Formats: sequence, structure tokens, C-alpha cells
Amino acid sequence: MEFYSVYHRSSDNYCYPLNKNDLIINLKTSYEVEQVFLHYGDPFSNGILGSANRWEGKREEIIYKKNLKNGLWWTTTVQPEFKRCRYFFELISVAGEVYYYFEDMLCTKEELERLHHEPGCFVFPWMNEVDINDIPRWVNDTIWYQIFPERFCNGDPSISPKNVLPWAGSNKEVKNTEFYGGDLRGIINKLSYLKDLNISGIYLTPINESPSTHKYDTVDYLSIDPHFGTKETMQELVQKAHLLGIKVMLDGVFNHIGKEAKEWQDVVKNGPQSKYYDWFIVNEWPFKENEWNTKKGRYYSFAFNDKMPKLNTSNPKVRKHIIDICEYWVKEYDIDGIRLDVANELSHRFCKELRIRMKALKEDIYILGEVWNDSIHWLRGDEFDAVMNYPLGNAISDFWLEESYTKKDFEEDINRCYTLYMQQTNDVLFNLLDSHDTIRVSTKIPDTDKVYQQLAVLFTMPGSPCIFYGTEVLLQGKHDPDCRRCMPWKEIEEGKYDGHVEFVQLLTRLRKEESLFRSRNFHFTNHIDNDRVIEYIKIDDYDAKKMAVILNCSNEPTKLQLEGKILLAHHYENNILQTGGICIIKL
Amino acid sequence: MEFYSVYHRSSDNYCYPLNKNDLIINLKTSYEVEQVFLHYGDPFSNGILGSANRWEGKREEIIYKKNLKNGLWWTTTVQPEFKRCRYFFELISVAGEVYYYFEDMLCTKEELERLHHEPGCFVFPWMNEVDINDIPRWVNDTIWYQIFPERFCNGDPSISPKNVLPWAGSNKEVKNTEFYGGDLRGIINKLSYLKDLNISGIYLTPINESPSTHKYDTVDYLSIDPHFGTKETMQELVQKAHLLGIKVMLDGVFNHIGKEAKEWQDVVKNGPQSKYYDWFIVNEWPFKENEWNTKKGRYYSFAFNDKMPKLNTSNPKVRKHIIDICEYWVKEYDIDGIRLDVANELSHRFCKELRIRMKALKEDIYILGEVWNDSIHWLRGDEFDAVMNYPLGNAISDFWLEESYTKKDFEEDINRCYTLYMQQTNDVLFNLLDSHDTIRVSTKIPDTDKVYQQLAVLFTMPGSPCIFYGTEVLLQGKHDPDCRRCMPWKEIEEGKYDGHVEFVQLLTRLRKEESLFRSRNFHFTNHIDNDRVIEYIKIDDYDAKKMAVILNCSNEPTKLQLEGKILLAHHYENNILQTGGICIIKL
Repeated sequence: MEFYSVYHRSSDNYCYPLNKNDLIINLKTSYEVEQVFLHYGDPFSNGILGSANRWEGKREEIIYKKNLKNGLWWTTTVQPEFKRCRYFFELISVAGEVYYYFEDMLCTKEELERLHHEPGCFVFPWMNEVDINDIPRWVNDTIWYQIFPERFCNGDPSISPKNVLPWAGSNKEVKNTEFYGGDLRGIINKLSYLKDLNISGIYLTPINESPSTHKYDTVDYLSIDPHFGTKETMQELVQKAHLLGIKVMLDGVFNHIGKEAKEWQDVVKNGPQSKYYDWFIVNEWPFKENEWNTKKGRYYSFAFNDKMPKLNTSNPKVRKHIIDICEYWVKEYDIDGIRLDVANELSHRFCKELRIRMKALKEDIYILGEVWNDSIHWLRGDEFDAVMNYPLGNAISDFWLEESYTKKDFEEDINRCYTLYMQQTNDVLFNLLDSHDTIRVSTKIPDTDKVYQQLAVLFTMPGSPCIFYGTEVLLQGKHDPDCRRCMPWKEIEEGKYDGHVEFVQLLTRLRKEESLFRSRNFHFTNHIDNDRVIEYIKIDDYDAKKMAVILNCSNEPTKLQLEGKILLAHHYENNILQTGGICIIKL
Repeated sequence: MEFYSVYHRSSDNYCYPLNKNDLIINLKTSYEVEQVFLHYGDPFSNGILGSANRWEGKREEIIYKKNLKNGLWWTTTVQPEFKRCRYFFELISVAGEVYYYFEDMLCTKEELERLHHEPGCFVFPWMNEVDINDIPRWVNDTIWYQIFPERFCNGDPSISPKNVLPWAGSNKEVKNTEFYGGDLRGIINKLSYLKDLNISGIYLTPINESPSTHKYDTVDYLSIDPHFGTKETMQELVQKAHLLGIKVMLDGVFNHIGKEAKEWQDVVKNGPQSKYYDWFIVNEWPFKENEWNTKKGRYYSFAFNDKMPKLNTSNPKVRKHIIDICEYWVKEYDIDGIRLDVANELSHRFCKELRIRMKALKEDIYILGEVWNDSIHWLRGDEFDAVMNYPLGNAISDFWLEESYTKKDFEEDINRCYTLYMQQTNDVLFNLLDSHDTIRVSTKIPDTDKVYQQLAVLFTMPGSPCIFYGTEVLLQGKHDPDCRRCMPWKEIEEGKYDGHVEFVQLLTRLRKEESLFRSRNFHFTNHIDNDRVIEYIKIDDYDAKKMAVILNCSNEPTKLQLEGKILLAHHYENNILQTGGICIIKL
């Protein structure tokens, strides 16, 4: 057996405390490995120097594993009595060979016996409580609803922009330059609608003063955009949401500022003399006029967009300024979460400082980063609680986009998403199929059954699911700007989408009421001889209850042989699951 | 080709900025891969949404690689124009097949072309200056000398303990209960000896007040042990060392405190009523008497030793208290480095806070952790500058301990040590063959030539080499306590060790004068057909100069065919390198 595919480090998602008692140890191997044992114990069990005999520790089989595209993922939990853990692995190959995997070598029993030195064990030295990655518990119970305020509901026409257009229907394609007058009063008016949809958290894209419809080019972080409302409207929104058990998360756009912001305008005017000069990263001043993008590098901006000069979060003054703003939001509005825009370009130093100050202010505040990639760098417990789980959304939709993908591909892709981070992070990942930054799910895969199936997966996965406003009515929309169409209230009132809304309501209700929908543990099964029928079992984290989720994504009906309480049936009758069907059964 | 053995994440030692311009990207593969290309570019080069065509980036071959036991380590450096980098890998197998390695998949060209979705690239989002792992430059130029003060030199008999024993010779085995009267005045007296040995940094094991000889059970962190000297002696020591260009590093024993410390005694007496109760981790009070070890868990201590109750660095009061002590040491003594004892059991939160305050106080202070294992968790740039590089010391000595090991084993073991961390960390790793915590190198492998050869490796490796006091005279010593014998000054004065001291002096002089000894870059060669002849080339980091290091560890002479300036020759004459010989040639 080769050493090449065996991977473990005593850090990150490979070895970490889940809480003050449990230490999780994970190992990646190739499929050549059939069985794994963990040898573990206290590093000082035989004194500081150890004993003359080679240390073997307590031997325990690692029972749980997940299939990945790039190998097998073995996972176990131990309870180190003295908070310290020394360990190594014993691997048994498909061919029956026995190997020992230490930090510095992989060897056979015979090789080990011949050694004149002690191989290096892995060590998790001490489970310090302050380092345990602690996440806000309420997030796993939350069903999010993302609102793009300008297009959600116009509740106060008196504050709409002068050039406001009449509210549009679902078919009207939209541009980022078109204002429709959505505002905070509109959201307040629709809170009971959201409550009926079992929503327990709303994530608002930016609401601070800005000239654009999307408001990702903030002019003033402390004032609500006058076309959206006032400080008081925002306070009222949060208060009323809280009364309904709905949390509120704001969008913190701190990677860059809006071109019109006074700080940037001061730099434009005064250059190096400006007291804000080092708030940005300026390579050349004065700037040439009329160059839309910043590719020549005169200063750094978001995505070369000259409307969005980057804030320099390497500068401690900038970090303090931003964190003061976040504190203001928490103190003045009583928000429950902050979503950081373009979070991956902020300095880690900023993210660490933000976390410390925010958690001191509001212990269970949710700090969510917009990172589209593998985000372990931000999820070690000292920066964000979670990231927007685009990898999961893609893993889900890829299966419907790629007709050649089998249930095995699906399993491996989903498992990848849930082996990247710590278990506690998985519980609070912000799971989504689409957002203001992507094509809408109903446009990406324009088939109602397939959208329902994707939503069923989203709502049964660990984490915290989010519905982008309008998904409950299968709102269409191509990539930005078209994914930001007006919420079609008139059509909704006319009952045009009743079936869709009811389907989403059923999913949200089940997610809310059945802990199995929210649970951390799941595994894929392969009882049905059809490569395009997805099957997985959810297991309750606290008792032995189980639930099966079956999705028929093939072109032919399939027979199910499951007994239990049917929680959700779509195109399912008399044990037959039709193409496009969903069956969720409590076993 | 399998996906199993290919490994990369955009974090840690796999992808990181070396400085504000250079981004290092490393990849691990199996030996099945023959050639690797990196495709890279700015994530926004085609706008936020990308273009209709699949992104390919700029294609560049990765030329450098290192052989490891668990695979090939490919390494390259890119200069992202806008501080952002999006990338994926193209792998060509030994069989000539082409694969693309993305963050979420490994696929062939044909599979890639068939895809209906974009695979996920790796991304290093932004090279924020404040996050760049910045290390103190002087450390790579430093040759350390570790002093165990109680056994180094008695310079002031008037302050020796009452029960002091006469200074012993090199043959006298020692116990931890025996006091010999070594002190700070003794060290001051020997500074010129150290200067002659080309030492440029001394690391002192603890000097604060404590009842023991080793002083790892501190009673008072702010006072110098009265048997060692006073605050003024310590200040004089640092001043005089600095005048000779010698840096001084103290040992910070903050994982635990000495049993006699007032804080612990207050807890012993008052239990939960003590204001220090939460400075420790007490599970049961009052304590039973006469139980030496703490295995029953009544409180947590270092290695179950009841003389060393653990300080709770999850407690912010404790963290502040300790960091205040470190500040005091820097302010009052002007020390240049702090070595943290049992650093792996301190909370990461503590390590992060310590770094921020220490670097603000003295920008180029060296923070060194005692961690014996893979230490990436502490070496991401926000905790320690380096760790005690025991894995390197072991990789070196293992080759001499294991006669079955070949030069290939040596190469792979050494390469492992230098692929675990970032390049800048490698420059300042604290490299050692032995210490007060291990058997002495001359006892571990009792053969002068073999000790010389190990020292030659130590002094030509990247990092910062350390000589444990007495190694220059091949002082013997088994594990703690015997490795702490008296420095045999009388024997030294009698010229008993002249040859050994001269050999070490030559190595230290070369390390000091030849940048090739200190350089970061090296690779192994295999020109000599002998599995036990180690050969490697060092390359200067700034020009094209090269140096060959050849060690004959076999039982037969070998012929060298190298031309250049011989820097060090041991058992080498007329192009013949004898068993036990060393040849270092500037090419």
C-alpha cells in the first residue's frame, strides 16, 4: 500500500474538539483501506519520557466513513480524560496487510519492530476551552429568507426615488439602474407573510445609503438609505421581526466603499494629504478621469470596479472604524447576524478582531462570510461562524445539470462539502441554491420537479437553509442584474403560485418541526438499482430516529419498499415514485 | 490516475504569500505524476461573472519538486499583479495522460469539455499585508547556544545554594536534586568563550525564582532566582551579550506554575474562595495529601506532576497576567526572544494575544514555541515565529540510528521537515540535535565522526542552529536528568577537547560567513553509487552560487569528483572521502 493517499494532520477539520469533552479525529485514505483502528491515549500516560516498551495506546476501530471522490473519509470521536490526546492509526488494506500510520511514517508491523527509534505519534496537545469553535446554536434551527430590499416590496411610496418605475410582474426583466421603490416598510408589511412561510431569519442585502439599487457601494454605513427608510424604520423592523421569532441579519460591505463616500472623495481630492489616504491602497495619484475599470492598478478596487475602491483592512484605523460600525448596528438595531460581503478579501486580522468584539457584545451573534470556495482558513473558530455554502448549492445543482452524473457522484460531491469543516461549522453553514449574485434556481434548471427536488435536498442537509425571495413562487431570473426581479405580490395574491408556495411551506414546516431535517448525521444508501435515484438516511443527533429521503431523478418510475410515516410525497403513490418525485419517510 | 493522492488547499503551507509580491503555491501528488502546470490569473480578469468561454488562465510549468515518502511536492512562486489569484493545476502522468485538478474535481480534458457547469478553481483571494507571515530577519543569521544555568558556570559562589556540590567533571552523572551553583555571573564570565565559538544567540532555560535546579516550576516570574543573581545581573548579562552581538532568549514557563507559587498556594488553602481559583483548572477541592501525580484528575497539571499545576490560559485574566510578565522581561531586560515551554498546551487565544502585544513592543522579537510535532497550527503567522525543530533533529539522527536507511530515506525525511511550513518559517526554525529534554547527541550516537556529520547537516540546513552547551566538547548525558551535567571547564582549559571545539568553531564560522550555509534552497543529488553517502547541494537565495555537502556514512571510502573551494574536510584527502568523512565544497 502507498503512503501517498493517506492524509491526516492534527489540525483544522482533521482533528479538533467538538466541545469540551469530545475530540473528533478524521482520516483520509484511498479505497485500498478496508478497516482502520485508532490507537490513542494520554501523551504522558507513561511519564514524560515514556517507557521502554513501545507505546500502543488504547485500540479502537473507526466505524464511520464517508465516500469521497478523492478517497475514504474515516471519522471518530474520542473523549480524552485529561484533555490531551496522542494517537496513531492502524490501517488494514483490502488485501489484508496491516500498516501503521504515524505523523512521520507509514510502515508495516515488521518495519515498526525493526526500528531503533520511536516513530512520531500525532498529538492533540490540550483541548483549551477558549479555542473550541463555538457556534450560535439558534442558527441550525433557522430558516433564512434573503431579501433584496429594492425589489421586495414598496411599503412607503412617499420615499421612493423620483425616477421610480411601477412595480413589475414576474416576467419583467430588470436592470440595476431601474428603481422600483422596495423599502423597509415593505418588509415590515410582509413579515406575517414570511411568518406563514415558517421563516425564522431574514438576511437583507445592504440597506445603508448608496446611489445604486443593490447598495453594495455604500456612501454612509451609519445611515439607512433614505429611499429604504430611517433608523426608526429599521428598529421597528427588527423589533417586529423579533416578536415573530424572526432573526435579522445585515450585509456588511466592508471590502470596499462606495465611490461617493466622503472618505474616498477626500482621497480623490487631496491624495496623499488626505487623512484617509492609507484607508485605501492607492498606487498612483492623481487619477485619470473616465477610466471605468482599475485594471491599470492606480488603486485597488472590488473586481476592477472604480465605483468600489477597496478599504485597506491591513490598516488598524480602518479595522477599528469598521468594527465600530458593526457595534453600532448591533447596539442601535439589535441585529442577530452580520453577513460580510467579499469576506475573503478582508484581512484575517480584521476578521479575528471583529469576532472578538462582536461576540463580547452579543454572545450568539452569527458572523457569516461571503466566501465561495473552500473556506477552512476562516472557519477555524476565530473568524467566522460560517460561510455562504455555494459549494453545497453547486454540488446539488450539478447533479441535475449533468445527466451523466450518478447517485455515487452526488454522494461524493455532497460528502465533500461536509468533510471540509468542523462538525459544529456544518451545523450552521448558510446553505443556498441561489442569491442576488447567481442565476435563479428556476432559471438554471427550468423544471418545477427538479427545483422541488433540489429544495428537498437543501432542506434536509445539515446547516441552515436560505430561500432567496421569490423562490417560493419559482421566480425566474438570469444572472445579475436579472435575478433581482420584483416580487410578484399581485400574482401571488391572485393565487397564481399557490401550489408552489404550499410546497415550500411544507418543506419549511417540516424543517421547523422535525429535528431529523436539521440533524447533522446522514448517509447515502444504494438499495434501488437506478443510478439516478438519490437515497439517503438522516439520523437524529440525539436519539436513534431515522428518516429516508428518496428522489427519483431518472426517466422511469421506481418502486420503494419503505415503511414509516410519510412526511412529504411528491409524485409518489402506492409505493411508486414517479420521475421528478420526492419521498421523505420517517422510518 | 487516482484523485486520492493529489492534495492541495488554498491555505497553510500549500498556498501563502511569502511577502507582499510573491505567492507560493505547493501541490502534493503521487509519483505517478511527471509534470505539472499551473493555470492562474486574476479571478476578475473576465469581470465578475466571467466570460462565456471556460477560464484557462496563464499556463506555467511548475519546475521545482521535492521527493517525499508520501509523494512528490511541487512548488512554485507567482506574482499576482492585483494581489488576487485564481488557479487550477494541469497534471501529466507518467503514462502521458492529462488531468485537470480543480478544488472540487480531478478530470480529464474530455470530461472537462463535456461538463455543463464550471468546475471550482482554487482561489487565494487577496494578499493582505497584515496577514503575511513576517519573521524576525536576524534569526536566520543566529547561531544559538542553549544554556542550562545551574550547570553551566558558577561565577558567584557567594549566592550558591547551601547544599551546593563541588563543580563536577564530564564523567559525573547528575540528578535533578543536585545543586552545582551555576549562575548568571558564570554566563557573563563565559560570554567571550561563546563569542569565540561564533555564538550569536543564547537561550537560557528558566532563571526565575524556583526551588528546583531546572526551574520549570516557577514561584515568581518577576524575580531572578537568588541563586542565579539579581535583576541587575540579568540586565548586565543582556547588555554585555548585546555588546558582543549576542542575542538573548528567555524561557517562558506559562503552561504551568510552580507548586510553591503564591497563586497556587492560595487555591490550595482557599479553594473556590480564592481569587486565583479560575487561574487553574480544578475539578475537586480540597486536595488529598501525598498523592504525587494528578492522574485522578483533582486538578490538571503538567504531565500529571503535582509540582506543576496548569495555568488556565482560557481565562483572560491569566492571559493578561502572563503577557504583562513578558512585557516586563522585554522592558526590564531587553531580551530578544521568548521560548515558550510546553507551548502546545497553551491556548491559541493566548498565543495570538501574546504575539500582538510582543510585536507591538519589540517588532523583531522572536517567539519560539516548544512543540515537538507538526506545528502548522501555531505557525500560520499569527502565533509563533517558529518552533523547536525536534522533527528535523530526529530526521537527522534517525539516519545514523537506522543503518538500513538509505540516502533516499534521508532525503525524504529531511524534505518532509521543510515542506510542513511556510518558507519564511523554515528560515527561522530552531534546529537542534538535543536539549535539556533529550538524551545528548554524543550519547545517543556515541561516535565522534557521526556526531560531526550530524552537526554538519544541522549547520547547513535552513533555519537557525542551536548547540546545547557542552556539545562542542561532546559532553555525554542520558535522558533527563543526566543530560544536564556540569560544563567541564577544567577539562576544556586543559585542552582535552581542543579538536572537538575547533571542529565546532569551524562549522560556526562557516555558518556565520558563508550565506550558502544559511540559505533556504537545497536539493539532494545521487551522483555517488552508495546508498549511505548523503549528498546535497545548497543554493544561495540571492545569486547562483552553489555548495555541495557530502557525508560518507557507509563502511567504505568513496571517491568524489567535485571541483571547487573546500570549506570543510573531515577524513577527506585526494578526492577520497573516508567512512565518517565530511566534505563541504563551494562549487
